[in-house]
Amino acid sequence: MRRVYLDNAATTYVSNEVLTEMLPIFNTTYGNPSSLHGFGRDAMAELDKARDRIAKAINCKPTEIYFTSGGTEANNWALIGLAMANRNKGNHIITSQIEHHSVLDSCKYLETQGFRVTYLPVDECGLVSIADLLHYLDQDTILVSIIGANNEIGTIQNIETIARICHEKNAIFHTDCVQALGAINLDVVGMDIDAMSISGHKVYGPKGIGALYLKSGIKINNLIHGGNQERGKRGGTNNVVGAVGMGKAVEIAVRDMSINNKKLRNMREFFISELNKRFTNFKINGHPAQKLPGLVNVSFEFIEGESILMMLDLAGIAVSTGSACSSNSLEQSHVLKAIGLPAEIGQGSIRISFGKSTTKDEVVYTLDQLEIIVKKLRDISPLTTKRSK
Amino acid sequence: MRRVYLDNAATTYVSNEVLTEMLPIFNTTYGNPSSLHGFGRDAMAELDKARDRIAKAINCKPTEIYFTSGGTEANNWALIGLAMANRNKGNHIITSQIEHHSVLDSCKYLETQGFRVTYLPVDECGLVSIADLLHYLDQDTILVSIIGANNEIGTIQNIETIARICHEKNAIFHTDCVQALGAINLDVVGMDIDAMSISGHKVYGPKGIGALYLKSGIKINNLIHGGNQERGKRGGTNNVVGAVGMGKAVEIAVRDMSINNKKLRNMREFFISELNKRFTNFKINGHPAQKLPGLVNVSFEFIEGESILMMLDLAGIAVSTGSACSSNSLEQSHVLKAIGLPAEIGQGSIRISFGKSTTKDEVVYTLDQLEIIVKKLRDISPLTTKRSK
Repeated sequence: MRRVYLDNAATTYVSNEVLTEMLPIFNTTYGNPSSLHGFGRDAMAELDKARDRIAKAINCKPTEIYFTSGGTEANNWALIGLAMANRNKGNHIITSQIEHHSVLDSCKYLETQGFRVTYLPVDECGLVSIADLLHYLDQDTILVSIIGANNEIGTIQNIETIARICHEKNAIFHTDCVQALGAINLDVVGMDIDAMSISGHKVYGPKGIGALYLKSGIKINNLIHGGNQERGKRGGTNNVVGAVGMGKAVEIAVRDMSINNKKLRNMREFFISELNKRFTNFKINGHPAQKLPGLVNVSFEFIEGESILMMLDLAGIAVSTGSACSSNSLEQSHVLKAIGLPAEIGQGSIRISFGKSTTKDEVVYTLDQLEIIVKKLRDISPLTTKRSK
Repeated sequence: MRRVYLDNAATTYVSNEVLTEMLPIFNTTYGNPSSLHGFGRDAMAELDKARDRIAKAINCKPTEIYFTSGGTEANNWALIGLAMANRNKGNHIITSQIEHHSVLDSCKYLETQGFRVTYLPVDECGLVSIADLLHYLDQDTILVSIIGANNEIGTIQNIETIARICHEKNAIFHTDCVQALGAINLDVVGMDIDAMSISGHKVYGPKGIGALYLKSGIKINNLIHGGNQERGKRGGTNNVVGAVGMGKAVEIAVRDMSINNKKLRNMREFFISELNKRFTNFKINGHPAQKLPGLVNVSFEFIEGESILMMLDLAGIAVSTGSACSSNSLEQSHVLKAIGLPAEIGQGSIRISFGKSTTKDEVVYTLDQLEIIVKKLRDISPLTTKRSK
């Protein structure tokens, strides 16, 4: 059966260029970077090279990069570690209603520890209002965490403006850029970002590795204790092979960003223009312009996204209804809810995320299948009116 | 130059058998196991298979295995998560003075959160005294964490006895078995263990992956929040390739345990008998019988372990002075201190850990080099008396 993978926002394959760099680490440069002998030093040199590559890609110092087990750990660490370490300055945290669960659940945990958390609303495009941010920022606010690009609808926030406002009020600014990495230029100095979470497996690197960028001088408490790794801030034997893979993947993602973005944008525009030609009663979610180049979140009225997903899956096509992390839950997407999409429309949503290997032929096949499936589901839907078929 | 790796207690290479299973995951079964489509289900099937293999190896249910980013995270989670979740029952924790830093530092963190921690002393062989355990266990004790096999001196504790005593006093028993895995039979049901940390990279699996075994029904708080992964207990996209590697590595470690142990024991006994023939004024640390088969911790009087390590390294031989995790610190080993080794003898210690690929020829080469090096260092040591040369 033909298989088409259009869920690159959930995860990507590991590219050959990345894998080639990883392979020798498994059984040649396999030392523990904390060991003082040659095998250890060789592994440390690989870890340093990976750190340098990531630092260069986001314009920070290598000593400002801390490897973690992924974006989720980086988000947990940033939220909990920064809040706890800066508690003496205040106990208010600001985030948004459309954050990844790793940020939202860390905030919920912090609420149990006595912190006050404001969850900023977003407009119908998914943008955080600067007026709202200004309204809620007060002398007690120690930390603001806003997602760089949303993983469900692709909306890209005005990070620089948000960072500037936070700093005017002396709050630390963290941003979850797991999804933004490789899609927008992330210059942490130019954008004045204090802390940023990134991950390997969304940019053709391996799963199980991520990093927290943390500006020099900002205090953070450890989340994972023990050992002198990561300059004493994150214990545990370094995942050298993961770091090497992520280092190469991030380097490539930044190197090829404009070419990839152009390709993905063209694909998305073609897909949307075909949707307009072939379908009625649907809605594209997210911001019309400030959005990830390869992501389309579309709601088809009268039917269920999960049914579309299942039927596309039978045709060998992989899409999602939202974030993979919450795919086992039956709740409505908190992101679609936050942009004010009525539940009856939101339930008909699917997320299609193109990748750098997606072909036009695959997109056309997907559109053809989608046309058949949407028609079939609408034909049997009790909600469908004659007109809307 | 000839290179001999005798630091297998710090980390091991990834074996070919393991790597072969991992490779297709990078670019074929690369889906996100949380995704509902075919790519996701294929990845979930691989994750399930890995979980099953580990469960079988330690005799638990697959639903009692929670993947983590390594032994350090598993130890942090066990200590902090179990203490926090069971705080209503008491606030006393017992551990030992010879735990891994990830356990000790988690305990130090818990002390800052109001918990009372007792650090049990050990005897000169590194064994925790059962009388001491009984003495300190009280109605307030909620958690006991004792390392299964020590990573520096190799002493194996009487885990079953300790578990039984903990349960008589209604305390939860956790054991860090990162180093014990593959060396002793870890039957969590037979040994009545409530929680156990293990890792991939000490048994010829990849770095960056570990697991916490947690007996059904025992309450634990999350350490890493967000997402429904690991049955809602550990957020973050699953490191499928890591889990697959660890699953295979653990399966092999248990399958080949008796063959490997026999080989390692023979190598160790040969090494020690040669030490006796060739050297004077040295001491083998750890228990004479209850010890890891492939590990020798030896103190050479009048000289420094670090100097021996450096000179062996120049000869291409990799050993350590203790735990790799603390190799960048200048402090005396807390383990050697705990077994009562005087600082002036402890400083002359090196740890040699054989692996399944170590050859007798490599051991002889190491002994030859060691003989030259120890003589050379003693010749220039101000501490050496004429007699002891």
